Amino acid sequence: MARTPTGAAVLQPEVTQAITDAVLHELAEQGYGRLSMEAVAKRAGVGKSALYRRWKSKDEMIAAVVTEFSVSRAVLEDTGSLRGDLRATLQAVLDWLAHPLFSRILPDLVAEAARNPEQARATSENIGGPRREVAEVMLRRAITRGELPADLDLELAMDVLAAPIYWRLVVRQAPAEPDYLDRLVEFALRALGAV
Amino acid sequence: MARTPTGAAVLQPEVTQAITDAVLHELAEQGYGRLSMEAVAKRAGVGKSALYRRWKSKDEMIAAVVTEFSVSRAVLEDTGSLRGDLRATLQAVLDWLAHPLFSRILPDLVAEAARNPEQARATSENIGGPRREVAEVMLRRAITRGELPADLDLELAMDVLAAPIYWRLVVRQAPAEPDYLDRLVEFALRALGAV
Repeated sequence: MARTPTGAAVLQPEVTQAITDAVLHELAEQGYGRLSMEAVAKRAGVGKSALYRRWKSKDEMIAAVVTEFSVSRAVLEDTGSLRGDLRATLQAVLDWLAHPLFSRILPDLVAEAARNPEQARATSENIGGPRREVAEVMLRRAITRGELPADLDLELAMDVLAAPIYWRLVVRQAPAEPDYLDRLVEFALRALGAV
Repeated sequence: MARTPTGAAVLQPEVTQAITDAVLHELAEQGYGRLSMEAVAKRAGVGKSALYRRWKSKDEMIAAVVTEFSVSRAVLEDTGSLRGDLRATLQAVLDWLAHPLFSRILPDLVAEAARNPEQARATSENIGGPRREVAEVMLRRAITRGELPADLDLELAMDVLAAPIYWRLVVRQAPAEPDYLDRLVEFALRALGAV
């Protein structure tokens, strides 16, 4: 049987989960600037050492938690059609941005990024990069199937997928009506030049 | 000749301008939460009474300054074609969002709005409303000229105009290349169903 190597930290998954939940709640309530390691530890019911065994700093802890939350929500469904894939992708973007905690966390991270180039770079690399890779796979599949032009402007196409939902829900704080996603899919199909 | 009514405050435009500049700089540097009336007055070289003669509170002062900045930048050009009008509109959105001070101010206001429903409502009413009215005039003109379908989904259309620029510049903090707006106009024309 495998034995825990001497000196290696044993990280209990249920403790990691409790800390993760605490970070998300504290971020939503206090914001990036005011979040403290003490408050996270207290909320999670652990000592601060449990945090520092996992992450070197507050910045690193927040980056890890927010990245896991965001990247795990970038779905790649293969429904066989661009319309079906787009619907699933936009639903996942909506669920991500409308999450009761994350809808308060992301605007704060964006504001922090505008003041803090290092945090901006990390967010872009950790969250934007992987999420866009997933979207690119979906778009390239549609090109292969002949549903999108081969010369599609991929970078702009990916902007156009997530941006209207962020604008509606986060910037305008306007509701997404029951038929919102269906209407948005039609706009997106046209914008991408679906044939 | 008109005389200043007894008791009415005489508001010197150059003082208002100095205060406005100070508010924008303090907002960009300190953010909504940390901005103080003292710091604004000091930066503008005036007493706090000059601020309170103009606005009742910090919230009211910020709302007035940011509204003036934003609504004055919603251009309505009449170039005679949807493509020309769109190009001018998107250029104005880009200039608004890429402004060196405002690019740091708006994400902070959005983050504040996520925590403060009253501020969210005021921002939407003061900035979103008037800006969208201008965009709607442009779109309705194109419908009248037969360049856009009569049953255009106006609400979504307006989301789709500003959103990609906000996403690119503010959320992703990615650059707008020299040909960015031209590429975006093509996407927007397709998304709107230009005929």
